[in-house]
Amino acid sequence: MTQNDFLNGRVRLWQPKDGYRAGVDPVLLAASIEARAGERVLELGCGAGAAFLCLAARVPGLVFHAVEIQSAYAELARRNVEENGADATIWEADLTALPETLRQFQFHHVLANPPYFDRTASTRAQDAGRDVAMGEATPLADWVAVAAKRLAPKGTATFIHRAERLPELLSLMGAHLGSLEVLPLQARLGRAAGLVLVRGKKGGRADFQLHAPVTLHDGAAHLRDGESYSAKIRAVLRDGAALPFG
Amino acid sequence: MTQNDFLNGRVRLWQPKDGYRAGVDPVLLAASIEARAGERVLELGCGAGAAFLCLAARVPGLVFHAVEIQSAYAELARRNVEENGADATIWEADLTALPETLRQFQFHHVLANPPYFDRTASTRAQDAGRDVAMGEATPLADWVAVAAKRLAPKGTATFIHRAERLPELLSLMGAHLGSLEVLPLQARLGRAAGLVLVRGKKGGRADFQLHAPVTLHDGAAHLRDGESYSAKIRAVLRDGAALPFG
Repeated sequence: MTQNDFLNGRVRLWQPKDGYRAGVDPVLLAASIEARAGERVLELGCGAGAAFLCLAARVPGLVFHAVEIQSAYAELARRNVEENGADATIWEADLTALPETLRQFQFHHVLANPPYFDRTASTRAQDAGRDVAMGEATPLADWVAVAAKRLAPKGTATFIHRAERLPELLSLMGAHLGSLEVLPLQARLGRAAGLVLVRGKKGGRADFQLHAPVTLHDGAAHLRDGESYSAKIRAVLRDGAALPFG
Repeated sequence: MTQNDFLNGRVRLWQPKDGYRAGVDPVLLAASIEARAGERVLELGCGAGAAFLCLAARVPGLVFHAVEIQSAYAELARRNVEENGADATIWEADLTALPETLRQFQFHHVLANPPYFDRTASTRAQDAGRDVAMGEATPLADWVAVAAKRLAPKGTATFIHRAERLPELLSLMGAHLGSLEVLPLQARLGRAAGLVLVRGKKGGRADFQLHAPVTLHDGAAHLRDGESYSAKIRAVLRDGAALPFG
């Protein structure tokens, strides 16, 4: 177990040393959620809680529910909630079989950082917990359907995923949600997107929008060790700034 | 009738004064086609011929076929082919009912700049020819299916369309083609994409790629009259440079 700082120490997270460890992706996801005090937020597949705890640190007054299928991570998330002082309920559950109590709620925002790799097409991680977190046991279609189902009218679902899954993600989200928007994340200026943030609105009717990409790192290539994050991303990762789609 | 210069006069195009008139979109489409001498190229909905004639000017030795449903435009395209000296056959036909002779051919590249507006959702243009060229009488699904059907193995289909149609276009292309790639075109740095170039390969199996956007205009806003094209786009529009996806 190690304890890691996020948002310059505003969030401190216990994580398994060898299992799945949160990187910048959940922090970027959290920064993109345009939530306001008093709203209810659901995270699907929360792991140790990095994403929703970063959102809690940026926007006070939110009420969180979070679902995690692996009991060791659900336990960690509970510990991290307690130590970081968020208003959050952790549910150890398969997202395709949510507890009846949780299914009573509707949410203003649902967020998820689903496993990036199709389990049928990739080798397994050595660590079992990391394998579940990285590999796709639950189809992406289920993540999207469950997110959409739990949204209140006009609520938003936001996913972060590898850019190569964008066509599939748009197709799945388009079946349940409207007003789709994509915020591409490129490692460096001029590069193809590595990750995408994709948002949809329940009952939304606005045109699809493909926003200009956000550049993660300054410079044309990795030239030296140490930090090379762009000013915009530094503000997100260090100062807890928002990362709006628009 | 007016005669307009494209690619700094390397292509001269007769166009109706009041009907649909080619802008920069077909020139950008043509610039994105990575064709090589000896290959066969099909354009669907060629209008007066701006796109394929620009491609002919950039890449010598291509053999073109082009389909146009409106006889006045097909006639104009023939005249423009003659005056610009391309190896091109113009077919006056509905793309969903291509002539038997044309259906004998397979193509290395298919390109199209389909009508941008869904006829059922928009008001009609005053000019009838402009109305057919801008409004969507033939569903986008047919454009994609016909393009895919006419491709040789490993052949590419490339569409230019409004960015808000991207989810639909990806879904349609994904049903017939692989190795999908998107090149977003943004009016100015940091803006959402206005147009997208989308390419797919028959039998392609590569991951989807969302490329970094190409910026059409320099500066943060339209500040004065006159030209504000970025250097990259000036090279395409004036010097006939290529606009590669990668």
